[in-house]
Amino acid sequence: MDAIAVREGEHEPSVIDVPKPEPGDGEALVRTLRVGVDGTDREVLEGGHGEFPEGEDYLILGHEAVGVVEEPNGTDYEEGDVVVPTVRRPPNGENEYFERGEPDMAPEGEYHERGIVGAHGFMAEYFTSPAEDLVRIPDEQAPLGFLIEPISITEKALEHAYASRSAFTWEPESAAVLGNGSLGLLTLAMLVHIHPFERTYCVGRRDRPDPTIEIIEELGATYVDSRETSVDELSSEYEGMDLVYEATGYAKHAFQTIEALAPNGVSALLGVPEPWEFEIDGGTLHEELVLHNKALVGSVNSHVSHFQNASDTLGSLPEEFLDALVTGVYGLDDWEAAFVDDDTTIKTAVEFGAYEER
Amino acid sequence: MDAIAVREGEHEPSVIDVPKPEPGDGEALVRTLRVGVDGTDREVLEGGHGEFPEGEDYLILGHEAVGVVEEPNGTDYEEGDVVVPTVRRPPNGENEYFERGEPDMAPEGEYHERGIVGAHGFMAEYFTSPAEDLVRIPDEQAPLGFLIEPISITEKALEHAYASRSAFTWEPESAAVLGNGSLGLLTLAMLVHIHPFERTYCVGRRDRPDPTIEIIEELGATYVDSRETSVDELSSEYEGMDLVYEATGYAKHAFQTIEALAPNGVSALLGVPEPWEFEIDGGTLHEELVLHNKALVGSVNSHVSHFQNASDTLGSLPEEFLDALVTGVYGLDDWEAAFVDDDTTIKTAVEFGAYEER
Repeated sequence: MDAIAVREGEHEPSVIDVPKPEPGDGEALVRTLRVGVDGTDREVLEGGHGEFPEGEDYLILGHEAVGVVEEPNGTDYEEGDVVVPTVRRPPNGENEYFERGEPDMAPEGEYHERGIVGAHGFMAEYFTSPAEDLVRIPDEQAPLGFLIEPISITEKALEHAYASRSAFTWEPESAAVLGNGSLGLLTLAMLVHIHPFERTYCVGRRDRPDPTIEIIEELGATYVDSRETSVDELSSEYEGMDLVYEATGYAKHAFQTIEALAPNGVSALLGVPEPWEFEIDGGTLHEELVLHNKALVGSVNSHVSHFQNASDTLGSLPEEFLDALVTGVYGLDDWEAAFVDDDTTIKTAVEFGAYEER
Repeated sequence: MDAIAVREGEHEPSVIDVPKPEPGDGEALVRTLRVGVDGTDREVLEGGHGEFPEGEDYLILGHEAVGVVEEPNGTDYEEGDVVVPTVRRPPNGENEYFERGEPDMAPEGEYHERGIVGAHGFMAEYFTSPAEDLVRIPDEQAPLGFLIEPISITEKALEHAYASRSAFTWEPESAAVLGNGSLGLLTLAMLVHIHPFERTYCVGRRDRPDPTIEIIEELGATYVDSRETSVDELSSEYEGMDLVYEATGYAKHAFQTIEALAPNGVSALLGVPEPWEFEIDGGTLHEELVLHNKALVGSVNSHVSHFQNASDTLGSLPEEFLDALVTGVYGLDDWEAAFVDDDTTIKTAVEFGAYEER
């Protein structure tokens, strides 16, 4: 079967021919419909993230997949079920994090990530997965089911951020999303349509006209150009934010959010930057954290319940938003277009097979 | 009546004569037993914190009090009840934070703090307080009831830190307290005797022999000299900490705790430093927060339920520990000794009146 992979020593993906996988005990065989492309895939290609599966010199890409169960193979699924796979797998048999259904809390070395670190991804005509790592979604979500993994990332981050504010009465009204990539925009739409925020902001560094700024404003949020207003100036130029969601991976943002927050606010951090030394006014930031009961919460990955919530969320987001967000879905005849990253591209996917209604 | 106050322009406390207060509607009159002294009192004396009550040129000190109800004045208390007052009061009539019993979450400008900012403290023979700002404690806690306010600070900080970890299975085993002042030692004793930590550490910068190091080791904790092992080296020299409690006000510690934490750990920050610019490896710290799901939670002040929990906690701490912690209680004939801060002093209090069992 065809698969899209990165070979050792290369920084561009290629289509390779690999055997169709055979499901093992407790695994289902899934026919892949679509697989989304995101910044992590680009980092894997650049070599910043990845690790090849043991003994292999290529890694099949892709961690944002939706597919159809082709062979339930004795699992609880039925042929034709539309499913989304989670990303982490235990590297050496089970460990406590996987046993309790919280692979997202496993520390380094205790997980592989399919398509990212140590395990093949889903960019192939078929993949297999243990039944417990698949999440069934409604049939009608087959076309956009590849958005469920990124949405699940935000489900988890917001769950942890809210938990950190659960010891007191927290009635947030204002939120800022740092980053206008596809994850930032998905999160902004969630904050506008599903969460209780009355005023939302999205920080980017793009000139108008720009399709992401159009989406931001269509959602009713305020676009903030970080070249004009830095993140630590948000509170003085606009207002203190009850919630900040950082999806830029720009390390200064993590610390600038402390000043962007309103009293009792929380910042969810999701970016993964490289080492970078810089100066901060650590005394003032420390004081701000303490005297105003602020919190910073780092969050990575997600688990099954986050995927389930993400499917509900996908069902609640407006169609016009999703139409504007997904700028291209490309078949295997034109798959390279899905990896292009320019100012007109927001979210893309590769289509491996068509969905047929049952 | 006698009161211990700081006058405008002075940096040393003095005994002054002020009228005995009259309880207003809904207030009880309390005869003061003892009032603890802490670092915040010293900051008030230095002028770094305080603000005098409107229209006055002195501030009665003291925010860690225990007393006996002398005149219930129509409130639900009975004459002879042993009570501890909370610290914050609304500055201009009620506001939402006080209305819902969460004055500790009020932002700057929305509170006075008795003995610290804008309102007289409890270092006087009598004080009045609204009934809802008093917490009744068992009679036998009269002698050490002045420890309830500082314990309540930790009750709140731990409540918020635990809340931040409530979205997943968190079974903490290791904890480090930064700071071996009285608050650090009280917290260490709580972590050892009341919380589930199996291995505890306390970071200071004192030479042996030292009474605080003796207390730390008596509790079964490991003393870490920060001149030999810096906070960010705790994880490599000892182990990653599931919980770090910062009570030093040393701004670099707030950021070093990120590296001191184990995966999924949380750092409770309580210090209040001055502005201070320094360099950090913000990229690595940001990445650590995200990839290991770490959190930083700032916490200040406390409210009634934290005082109630603190009273339970006080009842569970070993007598030998409390005996070693309280190095002096001084009457009005020798009150200045309570403000001395040297290497043999840990926790002191001023005694305004004797407790008589009812």
